[in-house]
Amino acid sequence: MTAPQPSALAMVPFVSVADMMKLLNTIGVADMIAGIADEIEADYRRWPDFDKTPRVPSHSEEGVIELMPTSDGETYGFKYVNGHPANMARGYQTVTAFGLLARVDTGYPILLSEMTVLTALRTAAMSCVAAKHLAPKEAKTMALIGNGAQCEFQALGFQRILEISDVRLYDIDPAATAKVVKNLKDSGLTVTACATAQEAVTGADIITTCTADKQYATILTDNMVGAGQHINAIGGDCPGKTELHRDILLRSDIFVEYPPQTRIEGEIQQLNPDHPVTELWEVITDRKSGRTDSSQITLFDSVGFATEDFSALRYVHRQLEKTGHYINLDMIADPDDPRDLFGMVTRAQGAD
Amino acid sequence: MTAPQPSALAMVPFVSVADMMKLLNTIGVADMIAGIADEIEADYRRWPDFDKTPRVPSHSEEGVIELMPTSDGETYGFKYVNGHPANMARGYQTVTAFGLLARVDTGYPILLSEMTVLTALRTAAMSCVAAKHLAPKEAKTMALIGNGAQCEFQALGFQRILEISDVRLYDIDPAATAKVVKNLKDSGLTVTACATAQEAVTGADIITTCTADKQYATILTDNMVGAGQHINAIGGDCPGKTELHRDILLRSDIFVEYPPQTRIEGEIQQLNPDHPVTELWEVITDRKSGRTDSSQITLFDSVGFATEDFSALRYVHRQLEKTGHYINLDMIADPDDPRDLFGMVTRAQGAD
Repeated sequence: MTAPQPSALAMVPFVSVADMMKLLNTIGVADMIAGIADEIEADYRRWPDFDKTPRVPSHSEEGVIELMPTSDGETYGFKYVNGHPANMARGYQTVTAFGLLARVDTGYPILLSEMTVLTALRTAAMSCVAAKHLAPKEAKTMALIGNGAQCEFQALGFQRILEISDVRLYDIDPAATAKVVKNLKDSGLTVTACATAQEAVTGADIITTCTADKQYATILTDNMVGAGQHINAIGGDCPGKTELHRDILLRSDIFVEYPPQTRIEGEIQQLNPDHPVTELWEVITDRKSGRTDSSQITLFDSVGFATEDFSALRYVHRQLEKTGHYINLDMIADPDDPRDLFGMVTRAQGAD
Repeated sequence: MTAPQPSALAMVPFVSVADMMKLLNTIGVADMIAGIADEIEADYRRWPDFDKTPRVPSHSEEGVIELMPTSDGETYGFKYVNGHPANMARGYQTVTAFGLLARVDTGYPILLSEMTVLTALRTAAMSCVAAKHLAPKEAKTMALIGNGAQCEFQALGFQRILEISDVRLYDIDPAATAKVVKNLKDSGLTVTACATAQEAVTGADIITTCTADKQYATILTDNMVGAGQHINAIGGDCPGKTELHRDILLRSDIFVEYPPQTRIEGEIQQLNPDHPVTELWEVITDRKSGRTDSSQITLFDSVGFATEDFSALRYVHRQLEKTGHYINLDMIADPDDPRDLFGMVTRAQGAD
């Protein structure tokens, strides 16, 4: 091969799914969630710095494809993510994603990364950041309702960051619960498979709901939630998809990422548009209170916001040189003379 | 290496800059522009099928990063493109781009491609499609004002599709003109380097303006444009950037891609928002007239629209199997059991 080599400027580091798994196994699941949680929390502390754009959706009968851009003025990022509920039955993933970071000053990409695995990590990391500020002190037990793709990451994140020691599992499909029991057997967590959601939440300090593919489901009914619990509601994340009975919302102090998005996508789509909610960044920066007493029910109505993907991508970007788990893609044309694109192309002819 | 191989579903074909140059040199510049022009024209014929979203810009002091999504209900596409006028002085490209196609029914990407080179081709192809419907019959001579990165592609596209035989070049920098003369020396075109823009446009049937980095410049003054000419205005493509004196616009019949975008970005930003323009798709589908007489001045006020990038990406996608100029990227996580993302990750540990 004698073709002219693309210049370093033309190269964009790419983290494939295989590289992301290597990165995760090198660092460890819990440590990587903790690292991403630190990035997320640091970015929430400077929330006003971010350009917060609503998602840009393209809807079809089968699902939605969304672009989620944001920028902090120095770095630009976006995530491509799809949501296709019928995919699983056809042997495809319901949700896949990839993302990109670029320099704002030049517009040049600096990272392209798979984000199907990374989104699972950032969702768990985000839950932990919220729970640090909202869960009861000395929380030791978490119920996990819904034992799908997100479940183990939640369990290990909460073990690492909140020092949870016990998880109580429930899923309508016992095979899903069995999968989590197996995957967590060497985690050091005390894992209990429960026969009902009611059994799972009994005695739990934190209740995480992470079910999928349900429309206006009622995973938790009002009687199941008691004084002092923190609810970490992950699964209600698009219009028409909720997990909690409305009465629970009315008894809870509700914390959200970005109200304009959560009003449409979160549990609070069941409430009046002016129902009071607290923005999490205001709690993290001590502008507002989080948990104020031990009998309060706190609810983090999580839908996933673009800045969290940005934080996760930046975490990955910072690991590149340390771990080497990436390849360079020749994605940006970089002619010696920017005016001579044609010459660059034709000179490549016959060069290899 | 004994790591589990990602499934075929997880793979996304990627066309690098090097692959795009191979593709272009395999097919030939003129034939590839003609192929893309066919795709563009076919898509303009079914214009109402497209989901036409405005660009999603992220502005900074140094420039802009934009996402340009569209969909025809079967295939979704977007382009990432930056515009940073100060880049060239720092050794970076002013504009770089990449793009993606995905299946609407599953949300799975089917193509990731460099688009810096491809955008140059699609811009030339779009100019040719418009000129087929707007330029005077038997046009033989084209003036090219601005001899930068786009110039040779315009010349070869018009030679191939409009059967232009003579090009007359002018640039404020004689070195740019000399570059084009050299690059076109074996093209079969009669190439004339001119000392002034006035000299270049004299006797031309078509005037293409493709200058860059100028704010409200007046590349063409009113006296330079005569009866019967077609003006192909490429360079005025963002707010504050125009090439033509306003009086020329007032004497011309103006044709545009997508009025909501052209009113902001095109030459017509100099006119009242209700100044009459004709949408090109209506001409191509015979709903409206293009050129109706030989003395009419026609102006294609081109800014570049998302559907044209979509058409160009689809052209590239159709060449993949034929030419093999791509690699597969492991971009989509594809666990055997979609609920067991964690198991997929941990099973990869120590597998290679």
